[in-house]
Amino acid sequence: MPKPLILISNDDGINSGGLRLLVELMQQLGDVIVVAPDSPQSGMGHAITIGNTLRLSESHVFDGIKAYQCSGTPADCVKIAKGFAMKERKPDLLVSGINHGSNTSISVIYSGTMSAALEGAIEDIPSIGFSVCDYSLEADFSHVKDHVLTIAKQVLKTGLPKGVALNVNFPAMQEEPIKGIKICRQTRAKWQEEFDRRIDPAGRQYFWLAGSFVNQDKGEDIDEWAVKNNYAAVVPVSFDLTAYHAIGILNKEWDI
Amino acid sequence: MPKPLILISNDDGINSGGLRLLVELMQQLGDVIVVAPDSPQSGMGHAITIGNTLRLSESHVFDGIKAYQCSGTPADCVKIAKGFAMKERKPDLLVSGINHGSNTSISVIYSGTMSAALEGAIEDIPSIGFSVCDYSLEADFSHVKDHVLTIAKQVLKTGLPKGVALNVNFPAMQEEPIKGIKICRQTRAKWQEEFDRRIDPAGRQYFWLAGSFVNQDKGEDIDEWAVKNNYAAVVPVSFDLTAYHAIGILNKEWDI
Repeated sequence: MPKPLILISNDDGINSGGLRLLVELMQQLGDVIVVAPDSPQSGMGHAITIGNTLRLSESHVFDGIKAYQCSGTPADCVKIAKGFAMKERKPDLLVSGINHGSNTSISVIYSGTMSAALEGAIEDIPSIGFSVCDYSLEADFSHVKDHVLTIAKQVLKTGLPKGVALNVNFPAMQEEPIKGIKICRQTRAKWQEEFDRRIDPAGRQYFWLAGSFVNQDKGEDIDEWAVKNNYAAVVPVSFDLTAYHAIGILNKEWDI
Repeated sequence: MPKPLILISNDDGINSGGLRLLVELMQQLGDVIVVAPDSPQSGMGHAITIGNTLRLSESHVFDGIKAYQCSGTPADCVKIAKGFAMKERKPDLLVSGINHGSNTSISVIYSGTMSAALEGAIEDIPSIGFSVCDYSLEADFSHVKDHVLTIAKQVLKTGLPKGVALNVNFPAMQEEPIKGIKICRQTRAKWQEEFDRRIDPAGRQYFWLAGSFVNQDKGEDIDEWAVKNNYAAVVPVSFDLTAYHAIGILNKEWDI
């Protein structure tokens, strides 16, 4: 049996430490190809490059690994991997990350890491986005190694339901090891923005987007609860945004 | 009773014809504030600006209307509207568009138009994204006027279920008027990418992302069926991406 083919991408860019660790780990499970952005793409959501050209070039940052850097977004990376770099063979698994920073809760829709995973799911590739709730680019991720391997092996073995990708978030390193893996739902929460208004040297105003995370959800089956309590949180996510429960409501309420 | 306050954004930028039409229509229903990107932002998905500054300046493209142009994405526009331009009063309605081009089916996750609407829903503002399946920037949108007003009035009257925004797509203008409004689910479909590889004057390769839309869904309750059959398609969409049906499957299958 041939070794599984694993496509790796991320949103922190091809030089990030989290990507390097993910490459090391996935080499234990199969043949690896990397297609990652040539620069950081955090917060890119599910952006794609329309009306502009894309660059793709081979990268030699990983010894003995086929790797490409792309000028586009994480979603672009998966598209160009499928349409060009991996045209001859479809990957058996797509992993994205390991992201430096949390992608729990509502952050999933702003996340470039998760857009690569969702793009994989659209292409019927079992896909996982991994994030650690530690924004430092120098953060030590060694506490998540075993869990990344466990989850990736599980998905290689049993696949994922059609149209579903996994959003996996790990707590930052604690004194105790991670307690285990919990399957969760997305926390109901939002970012409370505060714009920091400043004046540039030319006298014109500009803004920094800042803000704080507000958890509005008291459940214990949510990803925020899991990471706060030192568990790995696994949320199955879908690219079908239909709010099915609302179809009946609108058909009943609306006078159309 | 004060007139409703309506926030208008889009992804084609503050100078687009679709935005102008939406402003004209919404003035019939309430007080209008526009916060729109200063340049086209198609395909931006739910991108936000992190690690870069934002510009916001008053615009005078609409007579007698308070309008701002923002250097960021559609989601940024809604955030800065809420955090700065409309700090004193929450809008009663957010409308985004009218987009020049379809946002049916999977396009919803790439859509800047819909990211503005989803951002509104996150903020508990009843929010609607409007699109016409005609990519021409000169397209005649007069056939959708009545339906845009009907839908906006309905949402002002009955609100929307919590956490739900509307993705509204209209067919391009046909000889017959639009037959009516259908509440739909998101079509299962994808873009089949084909990368157009070219060589620049310096001899380096670059790519254009191209592709064709592949409908994998034979249902008649989907947005693609509705617009193909000259109906307005209304899909209620959610920013909770949790694939709830998969939670039980993973808990059962996984050996964790």
